[in-house]
Amino acid sequence: MFNTGEEVRGACRGGEWSGQTSGLAPGFVQANLAVVPYDWAWDFFLFSQRNPKPCPVIETGEPGSPFTRFTANSADIRSDLPKYRIYEHGVLTGEVTDIKNLWKSDYVFFLIGCSFSFEEALLLSGLEVRHISEGKNVPMYKTSVLCSSAGRFIDTPMVVSMRPFTPDNAMRAIAITREYPGVHGSPVHMGDPDEIGIKDINKPDWGDPVTIKKSEIPLFWGCGVTPQMAAMTAKIPIMITHSPGHMFVGDRKNHEYRI
Amino acid sequence: MFNTGEEVRGACRGGEWSGQTSGLAPGFVQANLAVVPYDWAWDFFLFSQRNPKPCPVIETGEPGSPFTRFTANSADIRSDLPKYRIYEHGVLTGEVTDIKNLWKSDYVFFLIGCSFSFEEALLLSGLEVRHISEGKNVPMYKTSVLCSSAGRFIDTPMVVSMRPFTPDNAMRAIAITREYPGVHGSPVHMGDPDEIGIKDINKPDWGDPVTIKKSEIPLFWGCGVTPQMAAMTAKIPIMITHSPGHMFVGDRKNHEYRI
Repeated sequence: MFNTGEEVRGACRGGEWSGQTSGLAPGFVQANLAVVPYDWAWDFFLFSQRNPKPCPVIETGEPGSPFTRFTANSADIRSDLPKYRIYEHGVLTGEVTDIKNLWKSDYVFFLIGCSFSFEEALLLSGLEVRHISEGKNVPMYKTSVLCSSAGRFIDTPMVVSMRPFTPDNAMRAIAITREYPGVHGSPVHMGDPDEIGIKDINKPDWGDPVTIKKSEIPLFWGCGVTPQMAAMTAKIPIMITHSPGHMFVGDRKNHEYRI
Repeated sequence: MFNTGEEVRGACRGGEWSGQTSGLAPGFVQANLAVVPYDWAWDFFLFSQRNPKPCPVIETGEPGSPFTRFTANSADIRSDLPKYRIYEHGVLTGEVTDIKNLWKSDYVFFLIGCSFSFEEALLLSGLEVRHISEGKNVPMYKTSVLCSSAGRFIDTPMVVSMRPFTPDNAMRAIAITREYPGVHGSPVHMGDPDEIGIKDINKPDWGDPVTIKKSEIPLFWGCGVTPQMAAMTAKIPIMITHSPGHMFVGDRKNHEYRI
């Protein structure tokens, strides 16, 4: 349906696509979006640098500019994503398909690596990624692990995504994903969910529960929902993000994010 | 002589050590320093993010604070390095052993990964690192490769360091260093020096020339001198750095910077 990131972005811009981006334009990198006012941009940048596993920034805009230069050639992040979420003072206040009328001259955008990139690498290596084979969204959990604080982003709980594997495949999944530090890298935890404050693995805070077989170990990766958690915790006056699953699709290929 | 980073820093702070740090406190991470006023910090941060090979930032201070939190537990970067260089409007204007009386409340420090870390990994893997076996400083070159511009840091030439290896060992050196993206990662070029604007490999711009044998290929890595080049090119009002070879020595171990 869409063969390139440019085609996806054009359809979003033209109002012809406002759905999820999972599986669209295979091979092209997808990214989480966070837009903050310049007054908060330093704190967010520092937060991302200190927490590269949940928040691996792959591009930062020039203050005031909505145009990408690296992840895609001059995409307009105000219109080129299918759907956006608005957080005001830490509360989700709206969901829209365009933010052109909301954009201000002091806004700074951040594009953050997405697990879709390393999932492609896992699938190409012959591994089964459970939520994909079950046709579900990846299960995500708020944890008791606190991110490193940065400026006004204090004590943000890390959000993780979970994929179960047999021990053998878990070792391969670790070896593969560690080569993609720009898109969350290796897992932050494996095994006992209780160790990181997850009370019931079958009740994710976002996404869907997936089957974990008797012989399998759950692997937990830092998740791009963490910046939204940071917005809520810090009660930032305004943060605009993508809607879950409705990502920015770039011109770069996933394999370009391998070390 | 010094067994830990803390011992090195204490000797610098107490005025007992103002020499080079190569070989001191084996195993402990060493880092390049760059201090800029807050007004320039965003541009520098953006520059580092867009040029992670020559400028891999491993820690950024809170604006105004000279105290580290991650690379070392509460070191004072105003006194804990052996020697500093002062650049004013792009010109080297001084070299001092302490910057306490120069520090201002809007200064921000950046610690940048150093090739000493990956050289340890190369040596531990049994590879010969030429400038070390010849008792010299690593040869460094200004290249025709321009860094990605960021804010007022425009068209900075990338500085590289060079180490020669046989083809077999070159492949091993690439495989090893790519696992250390926080300390320059894999080479930016190998082979013909002319391709990156180096006219005479035997006349480095900094450091010493080293022997390159007939069977060897020169490998070029992004170099932490690049931020000083950025300061000179952008004519930043003030940037304070370490003196070449006189690095910050942290509490973390080099192997912690492996992916």
